[in-house]
Amino acid sequence: MYREISVARSDSSAHVAVVTMNRPDKLNALTKVMEAELRDAMEAADCDESVRVIVLTGAGKGFCAGMDINELEILPPGDIRAAQWMRPYDMNRRADFQSRYGYFPAVRKPVISAINGAAAGLGLVFALYSDMRFASRRAAFSTAFARRGLIAEHGISWLLPRVVGPGHAADLLLSARKVSAEEALEMRLVDRLCEPDELMTHTLEYAADLAENVSPRSVRVIKRQLWEQQFQTLGEATQMANAEMFDSIQSEDFTEGVAHFIERRQARFSGR
Amino acid sequence: MYREISVARSDSSAHVAVVTMNRPDKLNALTKVMEAELRDAMEAADCDESVRVIVLTGAGKGFCAGMDINELEILPPGDIRAAQWMRPYDMNRRADFQSRYGYFPAVRKPVISAINGAAAGLGLVFALYSDMRFASRRAAFSTAFARRGLIAEHGISWLLPRVVGPGHAADLLLSARKVSAEEALEMRLVDRLCEPDELMTHTLEYAADLAENVSPRSVRVIKRQLWEQQFQTLGEATQMANAEMFDSIQSEDFTEGVAHFIERRQARFSGR
Amino acid sequence: MYREISVARSDSSAHVAVVTMNRPDKLNALTKVMEAELRDAMEAADCDESVRVIVLTGAGKGFCAGMDINELEILPPGDIRAAQWMRPYDMNRRADFQSRYGYFPAVRKPVISAINGAAAGLGLVFALYSDMRFASRRAAFSTAFARRGLIAEHGISWLLPRVVGPGHAADLLLSARKVSAEEALEMRLVDRLCEPDELMTHTLEYAADLAENVSPRSVRVIKRQLWEQQFQTLGEATQMANAEMFDSIQSEDFTEGVAHFIERRQARFSGR
Repeated sequence: MYREISVARSDSSAHVAVVTMNRPDKLNALTKVMEAELRDAMEAADCDESVRVIVLTGAGKGFCAGMDINELEILPPGDIRAAQWMRPYDMNRRADFQSRYGYFPAVRKPVISAINGAAAGLGLVFALYSDMRFASRRAAFSTAFARRGLIAEHGISWLLPRVVGPGHAADLLLSARKVSAEEALEMRLVDRLCEPDELMTHTLEYAADLAENVSPRSVRVIKRQLWEQQFQTLGEATQMANAEMFDSIQSEDFTEGVAHFIERRQARFSGR
Repeated sequence: MYREISVARSDSSAHVAVVTMNRPDKLNALTKVMEAELRDAMEAADCDESVRVIVLTGAGKGFCAGMDINELEILPPGDIRAAQWMRPYDMNRRADFQSRYGYFPAVRKPVISAINGAAAGLGLVFALYSDMRFASRRAAFSTAFARRGLIAEHGISWLLPRVVGPGHAADLLLSARKVSAEEALEMRLVDRLCEPDELMTHTLEYAADLAENVSPRSVRVIKRQLWEQQFQTLGEATQMANAEMFDSIQSEDFTEGVAHFIERRQARFSGR
Repeated sequence: MYREISVARSDSSAHVAVVTMNRPDKLNALTKVMEAELRDAMEAADCDESVRVIVLTGAGKGFCAGMDINELEILPPGDIRAAQWMRPYDMNRRADFQSRYGYFPAVRKPVISAINGAAAGLGLVFALYSDMRFASRRAAFSTAFARRGLIAEHGISWLLPRVVGPGHAADLLLSARKVSAEEALEMRLVDRLCEPDELMTHTLEYAADLAENVSPRSVRVIKRQLWEQQFQTLGEATQMANAEMFDSIQSEDFTEGVAHFIERRQARFSGR
């Protein structure tokens, strides 16, 4: 049903959804169609109870080369301020996660970016809104904006320093230079590096472990805690944790979590 | 006097207190008794003027394996919200440091965790509330919560991303997988790694240097600055620093701090 | 015109200003004269449209050894609270950047510290207020304050944990020990390490790339975004980015940024 992305379940676990940006001849540069389809797929995965983990990757040699330069040139200025990407779906979330590309944190499943190739501009923004970043040794990175006369778009000025620290964030955003996968790992821009032909296997195995051996209920709550804490004091985060702990110990997943540990067997979590 | 912990002074300096969690047959898993004793020992060290640095470690092969599973199962839900751990001692502090396990930052001496073995669940929380984390190559780490059906408890969702960054924090909290000491160092979960038989020697030498060669007055103020700044703007932090600088240059320790430097001799700080 | 600093343009690009602290026999220890001259030079570079990047370094073997101990001893306490360093120039900025040494973030050009030797106390504060830190393998670092009986001055308690994380910040500020360039890189206190005789060449080449190949307009906006975001929620940062994006796509630099990319030639940015 999608024209510029594809969605499939992993062989490693039926609970893992793989979303692939699919314009390989353009290094998966973003169009308005792809943008809308990506959002649609993420929202569908969010609402589908059988999905526990989402892996985002790119077809062919690139991850996502940023906004397609053709769309960039003709972009009518009014579009930027128009909230045409706002949906009813947004209403229950904090303002921080209601922006055009800032909805990944509101998806109640972990999003892991499997960065198979070039991630530039918006492609890097997607990676930074993900919960984890695994990359191929053939991946390459650039913020791109400053060499186009653009600025740090869509929250990247806020996200990037929290991932790589202020010095590397300044380097990456001000110089907009190209960075290799090795340097990206060194800077902590990515969490793990894999051989190119092992990236998907490794990522899908990791995702399957999350989907099969960890409480989906815990994962859902913890993802929310991790994104919310950025806007909380330690006291507020602890108060939220105490309320959630109270609920968690009355859950089916807690009963199973203790039982499988004592019985030394694999867990069978219901997610409730 | 304590049943499940022990407290001693270091041979390296009489100003260094060593607090040891002491249920080695249970990898020092936490009970209500140990929890109360640990807090009591920390408060005593805080009030004792002869103590300048606190080292926290575990007896035997573990650091602290988290809440004892037996206590976990029978935990009455009401207990979590009951503030039975609140004490008059808490009243002078900001709310952030009044929680059940969040009192280390309010202790006016540096707390260094010497992580000799497994640190899991609450054991890892203790390490993260410490000012520094030194670890043995035989240490191992796990957040544990998500595999029990639990959530990111007691402020760990707030503390952990500040220590290891958002990607590794998500990995550690969502997967709850076991991490080796080497990987923990790589992630910056620990600040230093030592050979197992050198961990205590190294930590106690470091602690002795802090206790003997640095102004205890400076240490007290700086520890407070470091924890407070997390809730301050840069302007507020600078304003606090200016007020503290004004006081510091009128102190005995400042006079001694300049004198020993000019006279090229070891410092003899009074802490006033 | 300056007595204790010097200012020159780089051979690598006429758009790069090099500010050199120049009391080599004192490892460029700070005096009131140098403090005033440094501020004057930074403000002049800020206002000079031909300057696009600023490099800060030290003459001789040191970067800046901190406040000159002679000035330290005779410092009248009243001076600290007196706002004699406030200038009309400050009025358009947020309070966070109006403090005595906290004005680098308000300079609308990137400031790169080329740390050629010892950076201690205020010398380290200057480095931390810079956007990037490149260092010689012969550089050495110390916070110094706690061994003088002083406290974490001029915002360093706020800046340092954001650069090196909470554990290393506690180590550096509480122990005030001396740290080698290699350890500083390991801790991420500096972003890059160079052979001593290559530090200036490397830094000036990097600065020239920023000055010549990146939109000065983008650089100006992004530097502001990076410092402002520390006081913003993600939502606020995104809102600011959206407003700036709206302006950027109507700029000359955006037109040129797209044109040089499509025409595969070097950019000629006007900065407008």
